Amino acid sequence: MRFRRHVFVCENVRAEDDPRGSCGRKGSAEIRKALKEELKRRGLEKQIRANASGCLDACAFGPSIVVYPEGVWYGHVSVADVPEIVERHLVGGEPVERLRMRRLEDARAERDPEPAPGRNGGGGER
Amino acid sequence: MRFRRHVFVCENVRAEDDPRGSCGRKGSAEIRKALKEELKRRGLEKQIRANASGCLDACAFGPSIVVYPEGVWYGHVSVADVPEIVERHLVGGEPVERLRMRRLEDARAERDPEPAPGRNGGGGER
Repeated sequence: MRFRRHVFVCENVRAEDDPRGSCGRKGSAEIRKALKEELKRRGLEKQIRANASGCLDACAFGPSIVVYPEGVWYGHVSVADVPEIVERHLVGGEPVERLRMRRLEDARAERDPEPAPGRNGGGGER
Repeated sequence: MRFRRHVFVCENVRAEDDPRGSCGRKGSAEIRKALKEELKRRGLEKQIRANASGCLDACAFGPSIVVYPEGVWYGHVSVADVPEIVERHLVGGEPVERLRMRRLEDARAERDPEPAPGRNGGGGER
């Protein structure tokens, strides 16, 4: 795997009057900037990448973030949460439970309980 | 995990004269559109998401795509490759070897050979 962890921060911007809201109008660019700065400060920017993304389809929970490969979703994230996300999760490996989008993570398991196909699809590489 | 597979297609656009090139100027929006259409045609659009992303830091290999949770990277992808990526990898679980960015995938392993931290960081959820 190219990155130990790959963080996607939704920066989608919808019209101001869109009832769904959008992460890009809730400060997500600043969150990504803070993530990048914190990773760089720790010398981790080559191993852990903070990436912009388009709509992650979790608008109501924005600003929305997903961390791969583990597929942990965070909602209503603020710049103030960034040091904890980096320290505890991206470095330490423990998700920040208070920020997790549990309902959305659970929705998939409820809808479609069989195992995901091909977790071994990556040919065994890390 | 919310999605069985989450595909990120780099749609970053650089200046036309930027020597790095950029995925957004090599047809990546059309690739993502084709992915979405093919997933929808198969009724998989809720389980497998084709997402836009910002720069994936693989500009020379663009159009660039990464598939999570397995962290498989594809480069120089074209619209014509989409049916095979969907059929073989996203549905069947086997990466399309001829499209993989092997050099970049290997670069991380060479640079930083120890195991990635906290593959168990997701708390065991799928």
